[in-house]
Amino acid sequence: MASKTPVGFIGLGNMGSHMAKNLLKHGYPVFASDIFPESCKEIQDLGAQVLDSPAEVADRADRIITMLPSSPNVIEVYTGLKGILKKVKKGSLLIDSSTIDPSVSKEMAKEAEKMGAVFMDAPVSGGVGAARSGKLTFMVGGVEEEFTAVQELLTCMGTNVVYCGEVGTGQAAKICNNMLLAISMIGTAETMNLGIRLGLDPKLLSKILNMSSGRCWSSDTYNPVPGVMEGVPSANNYQGGFGTTLMAKDLGLAQDTATNTKTAIPLGSVSHQIYRVMCARGYAQKDFSSVFQFLREEENQ
Amino acid sequence: MASKTPVGFIGLGNMGSHMAKNLLKHGYPVFASDIFPESCKEIQDLGAQVLDSPAEVADRADRIITMLPSSPNVIEVYTGLKGILKKVKKGSLLIDSSTIDPSVSKEMAKEAEKMGAVFMDAPVSGGVGAARSGKLTFMVGGVEEEFTAVQELLTCMGTNVVYCGEVGTGQAAKICNNMLLAISMIGTAETMNLGIRLGLDPKLLSKILNMSSGRCWSSDTYNPVPGVMEGVPSANNYQGGFGTTLMAKDLGLAQDTATNTKTAIPLGSVSHQIYRVMCARGYAQKDFSSVFQFLREEENQ
Amino acid sequence: MASKTPVGFIGLGNMGSHMAKNLLKHGYPVFASDIFPESCKEIQDLGAQVLDSPAEVADRADRIITMLPSSPNVIEVYTGLKGILKKVKKGSLLIDSSTIDPSVSKEMAKEAEKMGAVFMDAPVSGGVGAARSGKLTFMVGGVEEEFTAVQELLTCMGTNVVYCGEVGTGQAAKICNNMLLAISMIGTAETMNLGIRLGLDPKLLSKILNMSSGRCWSSDTYNPVPGVMEGVPSANNYQGGFGTTLMAKDLGLAQDTATNTKTAIPLGSVSHQIYRVMCARGYAQKDFSSVFQFLREEENQ
Amino acid sequence: MASKTPVGFIGLGNMGSHMAKNLLKHGYPVFASDIFPESCKEIQDLGAQVLDSPAEVADRADRIITMLPSSPNVIEVYTGLKGILKKVKKGSLLIDSSTIDPSVSKEMAKEAEKMGAVFMDAPVSGGVGAARSGKLTFMVGGVEEEFTAVQELLTCMGTNVVYCGEVGTGQAAKICNNMLLAISMIGTAETMNLGIRLGLDPKLLSKILNMSSGRCWSSDTYNPVPGVMEGVPSANNYQGGFGTTLMAKDLGLAQDTATNTKTAIPLGSVSHQIYRVMCARGYAQKDFSSVFQFLREEENQ
Repeated sequence: MASKTPVGFIGLGNMGSHMAKNLLKHGYPVFASDIFPESCKEIQDLGAQVLDSPAEVADRADRIITMLPSSPNVIEVYTGLKGILKKVKKGSLLIDSSTIDPSVSKEMAKEAEKMGAVFMDAPVSGGVGAARSGKLTFMVGGVEEEFTAVQELLTCMGTNVVYCGEVGTGQAAKICNNMLLAISMIGTAETMNLGIRLGLDPKLLSKILNMSSGRCWSSDTYNPVPGVMEGVPSANNYQGGFGTTLMAKDLGLAQDTATNTKTAIPLGSVSHQIYRVMCARGYAQKDFSSVFQFLREEENQ
Repeated sequence: MASKTPVGFIGLGNMGSHMAKNLLKHGYPVFASDIFPESCKEIQDLGAQVLDSPAEVADRADRIITMLPSSPNVIEVYTGLKGILKKVKKGSLLIDSSTIDPSVSKEMAKEAEKMGAVFMDAPVSGGVGAARSGKLTFMVGGVEEEFTAVQELLTCMGTNVVYCGEVGTGQAAKICNNMLLAISMIGTAETMNLGIRLGLDPKLLSKILNMSSGRCWSSDTYNPVPGVMEGVPSANNYQGGFGTTLMAKDLGLAQDTATNTKTAIPLGSVSHQIYRVMCARGYAQKDFSSVFQFLREEENQ
Repeated sequence: MASKTPVGFIGLGNMGSHMAKNLLKHGYPVFASDIFPESCKEIQDLGAQVLDSPAEVADRADRIITMLPSSPNVIEVYTGLKGILKKVKKGSLLIDSSTIDPSVSKEMAKEAEKMGAVFMDAPVSGGVGAARSGKLTFMVGGVEEEFTAVQELLTCMGTNVVYCGEVGTGQAAKICNNMLLAISMIGTAETMNLGIRLGLDPKLLSKILNMSSGRCWSSDTYNPVPGVMEGVPSANNYQGGFGTTLMAKDLGLAQDTATNTKTAIPLGSVSHQIYRVMCARGYAQKDFSSVFQFLREEENQ
Repeated sequence: MASKTPVGFIGLGNMGSHMAKNLLKHGYPVFASDIFPESCKEIQDLGAQVLDSPAEVADRADRIITMLPSSPNVIEVYTGLKGILKKVKKGSLLIDSSTIDPSVSKEMAKEAEKMGAVFMDAPVSGGVGAARSGKLTFMVGGVEEEFTAVQELLTCMGTNVVYCGEVGTGQAAKICNNMLLAISMIGTAETMNLGIRLGLDPKLLSKILNMSSGRCWSSDTYNPVPGVMEGVPSANNYQGGFGTTLMAKDLGLAQDTATNTKTAIPLGSVSHQIYRVMCARGYAQKDFSSVFQFLREEENQ
């Protein structure tokens, strides 16, 4: 184990800290850095070495994983004054697991290439629980020759590592999945609500949908109606899960890429607007399945 | 076999003629009637007795199945001058398999009750193929005591017969399923289109969706993108399948019931409008998965 | 004055009571009836004679105006057991100022014709203030020969009486106007909100819109942003004006007629859904310009 | 006249060439440059001096106007290797009349400031006709002290020059106006279509709307229904006017700024998607009022 080469990790937030711990558990020495140094304490106690800047991480490790909130953070961490690319070594492998605009991933890949390094995008699906238990899914974009090396690291943190194509396609796959998820979640919520208003029992209706052509993940695995399923956010007052603001962010990325590529996404656009209004009306911190509650008119109103 | 009591069948269209044939195959004597008498020829050759009007059918059979295009036809066939209720016998069982507004089903049930008869709604899913092979799904609404009797007849024509609740809930379940189907089909079409524009291979993208939270029937069983699956309308220039006009009709019913019950259906409404515009722009006769083609902008435009 | 022939008035609600008072002011004897007799007290004190049912009104007056909340009320008042048509005299003129589905207006006209009477639809725009001051606008549909007689009565209550065409077109004009109003109000609200977020002063922005191609009644006469105009509901916490539930009702009628005529109304449908959700989220009693408040995300959320 | 100081003009397209001619007419010596040198021929014949690059223009003139298709072109013309800022003189006034993302305007202003120059955004409304006749409207953002100097130049090319606030607000005003324009145009088109289906004469319906609360520029000045008005694109098979692709571009900018500022624009988003689909379905080059034609279902389909 001791012979494993060290891995850099930048961005020790809710997701990143669990991911870095899983790297440590698999025996990788970790050099960590975060704009908020206190985020690194826990992992430092577990043996990671904390450094002051992305540049310093790049100086010490030639495989680096980044996990950051949004495009501007990624640009800063890679190309900023103390960014990775200031000290990156030739031949380094840079893996970005942030969910960002694929055109930014492409830009970063070009900049990395100028320095002789390889940049791959590898956004995740699965949330904090999957990050903790090492059961994330990674969608990977970038040069295919590096995929084996990427896979070696990412399997420490996830169970599925899918190669999607050239750089940016990992982001594309993530964004596409989440857009379809938002659409089918809102669709399930309004369908269940309509059925209930028409006199159907919600459990029976979801059973019928799930054996018919209306079946989807939001109806059979993550039903938004309280009382239909256990162990999902709708059974727990929409706490936990995947927050409405995060969904609104991902739909914003979907909208940006659609506008840039002149692609019509009628339901994706409307879904984006619905989650945006929900953020404005007090649902920002609830799970995104709370759209059922948002749309529902109480009988006595 | 000879001892089976006869069954009336009104509405021998694309669906009804296959359904009536399956009743004959199961040994039921059939009394048939259709506003276009020539529709009855085939079934007449197979042994059915053709009568002039719904009233005459009601005079000869105390179990009657109706399969009609829309609400006004149902109203006419039940309450018109030569309608079923003019000659219905006390204790008769009237099963309507049309897809119509559930409030009309409720009205018909009231009118039938006045005559001492029982009306149940039992719309189908599955299309002409399933009608022919006797593999329809029936969603049944009405008094629960009659469900066994209904089931006996409907299992001659279908493999699933689901009890949904009071009268009208069969329609409600059908409408709800088809609304969610329309939403997830359009969602799948625009998601696949966006992914392709962003550089993803369509087969790979659908594989990723199907193992993730974007999974739905439209992505894993009836994918709208040519080349992704075989044996679906998208593999056959969107011929066959479930026509865009039929989907527009069902979404119109969903919209009507939602407006009447003051229920918000944001994506259902937009989906209704999209299928309505498609009807206006030449897609009326294509399968409803042709929305992929409708939304797609060719690169060289 | 004494020689004027009496007029029947059915439906003495918020609008109808003011309209009937204006008839009295112009010297017309009034026979009034309402399902809630206490609604008639004020007008009784002013000299109107109150009767028990629409049928009795029809027995005493051969010109009758009805002002009712919705289609089922109109059907009951005209064709119910104690309805107008039970005792209507040949040659009577029946004017319905309710806002209802134009297909119901057509039905009522047919039923009236069977009794030798003429039914015209004449919905109003202008609200309670205009009803009080006799400044309503009437949109009239029905046989053109009767328009002069209709105009004579309606000019007692309104300043504009517009002939729209055959029966039902008065409703059509009303519904169309209110649909476009809803669309441009929501459009103005989201545009003003976007401009403010981008750093524009709201008064300046509305000035620019009003001299440009974005100009509309909602921007130049009834601006939804507090502080831009005086004397409008947005200057008074969205009290008074035209309530969100009423707008949702009119949009429901627009949707019904569009569905029946297979007409695509993409923005009308979305506007309907937005006002429907607003009713569910506590905006039911506020003026419909409160959509500005509904969409707005506060900076600190 | 001869004593007037020269003005630089970069971007001699459909709009820019007319604008530059109007500067010449007002006696300003013009230094022109365009990435396609042949675009400059006409203005060269009229006395303008043509230069090879924006940098050279900046070397010769200290007041420069730019009129370019989109954000990337503006970035290139200002900050590229041969861009204006490479040779700009201290105290220069740079006026950008392109319609672009306001955040790009802000960036350009910052870069200009570093070089001691002032950048103002001044997008136009009015189209090619207004550019030719010098009747454009300019919406100006930037430091207020420079507004008088800006106004002096822009009044040679337009009749309205409106100060909107800090840099970027000119763009904001333009984008907001065009978003509301798109919404009310689609709204007018679907409303007129619905009214016609319900039996109303289109001229009468537009007259009613224009005297009521549905009134807007799209109904009273630029009606989309053939036969209602003369001298508008709908009277000329939707040729001329403001193309659907241009409207789609402006709605894309509105969507981008809304997403960036977390602003809900439900009808703006749907309008964007409708114009996007129209581009995909053959309406790209038609005037944006052709949405009436796009939505319309012919009776015999």
